[in-house]
Order: sequence, then C-alpha cells, then structure tokens
Amino acid sequence: MNTKAKKISQKIAPSQSARMVETIYGCKWSLTVYQLLQEGINRPGEMVRAVDGLSTKVLNQCLKRNVEFGILNKVSFNELPPRVEYQVTELGEQFLAILAQLEALQKHIDTRD
Amino acid sequence: MNTKAKKISQKIAPSQSARMVETIYGCKWSLTVYQLLQEGINRPGEMVRAVDGLSTKVLNQCLKRNVEFGILNKVSFNELPPRVEYQVTELGEQFLAILAQLEALQKHIDTRD
Repeated sequence: MNTKAKKISQKIAPSQSARMVETIYGCKWSLTVYQLLQEGINRPGEMVRAVDGLSTKVLNQCLKRNVEFGILNKVSFNELPPRVEYQVTELGEQFLAILAQLEALQKHIDTRD
Repeated sequence: MNTKAKKISQKIAPSQSARMVETIYGCKWSLTVYQLLQEGINRPGEMVRAVDGLSTKVLNQCLKRNVEFGILNKVSFNELPPRVEYQVTELGEQFLAILAQLEALQKHIDTRD
C-alpha cells in the first residue's frame, strides 16, 4: 500500500450564488420587496406606497439588481397607461428558500446557551 | 375602507448567519475542511498532509473561525501524545446543508443559457 495519502485539492466556493447572498443582504430593501411580492404587491408604485422610507429610486436599483441576478422577472404589460409587475423566478424561489433557512439558522444561533 | 395602505416596515437581514456565509466563503479552505471531515479526516496533522497547499498556520486560523461560529467543535483527548479532533456541530450540519443548496443554486445558474 502506498503510504502517501491521496492529495485533496482545494474546494472552491460557488462564487455567484455566494455573491447573491452578500449582495441581496447588502441591498437593504430586498427582503422587504420579497415580502411585498408574497403579499401580491408587485407593482413598483404600490411598493413605494406600502413601505415607509422606501423611495422610487432606491426601489428601482434594488429591483434591477434582483432582475440581473435572475431572482425576479420584470413583466411589462402593453397597456395604457403602461403597467409593470415583478415576479419571483424559479431560481428566485430556490434562492428565497435558502434565505429562509439562513433566517432559521439565525434563530438557532440567537437561542444558543 | 381606509384608502391608506398598511405600511410595511423594513425587513432586516439575519446578520450573523449571513456573515457566516460571507466569512466561510472568504476563508478559502473551509469547504475543503468540511470535505475532509466528511471523509473522517478530523485531526489537524492529517488534514495538512492530505491537502496540497494547506499550511498548519492557515488551517488553524480556519478551524478557529469555524469554532467561533459554532460550526465545528474542538475535542481535546487527554492522551499522550495529546490528541485533538474536530467535529461538525448540530448548527454546523444545518449550515453545511445551506452551503450545499447554494452550490446547487450555482449549478442552476451555470446551466442557464
């Protein structure tokens, strides 16, 4: 038997999904937006009206970043006046499930000893 | 009916668990250490021998951080010579399950057109 142990190489972090967690938590309104979407509030104007301290500009930045990551879809309806809604994508659903588990883990941490 | 929408307040990110993800992915050997532990390689000396490019100093920093977060337990055996082993805690198991899902999400992202 060879006495030399099998060498294991470095395991690389999933950079994109890890960056998603960091960025989304960095964008302080993302979690609020997900909550609004769950409540069926999916138009930017409604969102701004529903949340204290949320401006249109900041919301748009937040929505844009979420669309870039593929977490949200922007759906434009060709109506008069034009209507825009946001929806959680399939990838987004997976991502939100992970965020929910991080939240559960936080509760676990908070209740330790 | 009141026309004023119910105001929703900002939802705060679970700071500690989010920081765990960032820190663990930032510590470039953590994922390798978890893999070693899964393979039953749980003593620092064995770990260094099993992994190319991993130094004792860097490994110890990585292990220490994981113990601080409560992901790993350090178990010291009162033997001659003294023996030290690392184990994944219950919290750690939960955390590793989340990391596995982030990895799966990454594969989902990578296979998008």
